[in-house]
Amino acid sequence: MLSKTHTKYIQSLQHKKSRDEAGLFIAEGPKLVPDLLAGRNFICKELFAVKEWFDHNEKLRSTYPNISFTEVEDFELGKISALTTPNSVLAVFEKRKPDSNIVLKDKITLVLDTIQDPGNLGTIIRIADWFGLENIVCSQGCADMYNPKVVQSTMGSLGRVNIIYTNLAGWLKKNNSIKIYSASLTGKPLPALGKLKEGIIIIGNEAHGISDEVMELVNEKITIPRTGEAESLNAAVAAGIIISHVTG
Amino acid sequence: MLSKTHTKYIQSLQHKKSRDEAGLFIAEGPKLVPDLLAGRNFICKELFAVKEWFDHNEKLRSTYPNISFTEVEDFELGKISALTTPNSVLAVFEKRKPDSNIVLKDKITLVLDTIQDPGNLGTIIRIADWFGLENIVCSQGCADMYNPKVVQSTMGSLGRVNIIYTNLAGWLKKNNSIKIYSASLTGKPLPALGKLKEGIIIIGNEAHGISDEVMELVNEKITIPRTGEAESLNAAVAAGIIISHVTG
Repeated sequence: MLSKTHTKYIQSLQHKKSRDEAGLFIAEGPKLVPDLLAGRNFICKELFAVKEWFDHNEKLRSTYPNISFTEVEDFELGKISALTTPNSVLAVFEKRKPDSNIVLKDKITLVLDTIQDPGNLGTIIRIADWFGLENIVCSQGCADMYNPKVVQSTMGSLGRVNIIYTNLAGWLKKNNSIKIYSASLTGKPLPALGKLKEGIIIIGNEAHGISDEVMELVNEKITIPRTGEAESLNAAVAAGIIISHVTG
Repeated sequence: MLSKTHTKYIQSLQHKKSRDEAGLFIAEGPKLVPDLLAGRNFICKELFAVKEWFDHNEKLRSTYPNISFTEVEDFELGKISALTTPNSVLAVFEKRKPDSNIVLKDKITLVLDTIQDPGNLGTIIRIADWFGLENIVCSQGCADMYNPKVVQSTMGSLGRVNIIYTNLAGWLKKNNSIKIYSASLTGKPLPALGKLKEGIIIIGNEAHGISDEVMELVNEKITIPRTGEAESLNAAVAAGIIISHVTG
């Protein structure tokens, strides 16, 4: 049984301000929650699940003695869930402190300028994890990595990629020894670019691309050749194509 | 002013059964609606917009004399819209008959096996349009191309790609003169595959991949090399990476 206060508290974690104050976020579902628990990149504080889920996950109680487990009814899970269709289990995790002293030498680093769609950000985090990129640097205007929609779409990759939020122009100026590439609608065609050992690759906003301030710092614009007529590619798809090409 | 019956009728187009019966679908927003009108791939029957939109698009009334234009209040648009945040204009278009006699020779053809997420399907249609692929062949289990979420995420590419729905195994058997490739978690690494002049590329379901029946017909499995730890890539991202590679 969940109290009204407790319910409101979990609901509040759907909002960035509350997540920042509490230092917590939520993750949901019978695939993602065990993945995040097993990954041990985030400390789980509380876990709420329906009876059937606990019946199939008995041993978790002894594996994680520090987690507060609560059995809830479907309607209670529905109240605390951020999903349209709540799914068996919801857990509250501690946010972690990102490592802001990242190494750029001999690595590909992804930089996101105002990626606002949570689904896109989550998909990009998954791409970085697939291709073994260690770090993503986000502008302050990007969606919050702990937004429930981002968390759900990362499919467990959230704990395996170090993500920092910073003033992009300032950060790029400080790291001017590494060549900066941008995904653009014009520039060097991707196939003409070889495999890269190191570099910063910037992906811009879904509608407005890369901001002028950041664009000024770009050393080479690269473009995915278009033979058809679409105006643009989805930002996550563009990120995937470029990273696959330069690391492949 | 919109009558209750008219409102219900437009709302019904959010469901596949009603769309199929009426042969109609809806598209929304000040970017997409004019794009679809200008593309002239779909016949527009009715257009509903708020006063401000009509103020800025006066000349459309004379350009398209056969469209029934209706000025609506914000709350009325909210009722007929499929968007969380309705945006100025909604139009009703006629579905078109796909061209089922497609040419596969000397072309790359994309085949989708049960792509269920409307956002993924829309993004894949946009990818096909970007790379100039003429046709997409969908299994019956794919999301409906006229689902409002698909329509919105195609960003106007919907009219420029011919999309057919069919029994995939049967269709592939009939077209066995063309080499069939699948996006898989194992197989030939993508960089080892050269540029392709022709071929069928199959992308499988978000969670279950390609069905056994279809997999039996595949000639070559290809895989996007993974150096990190993510379990999978988003289906649209995988489609983008493979198509970019084989056409690049």
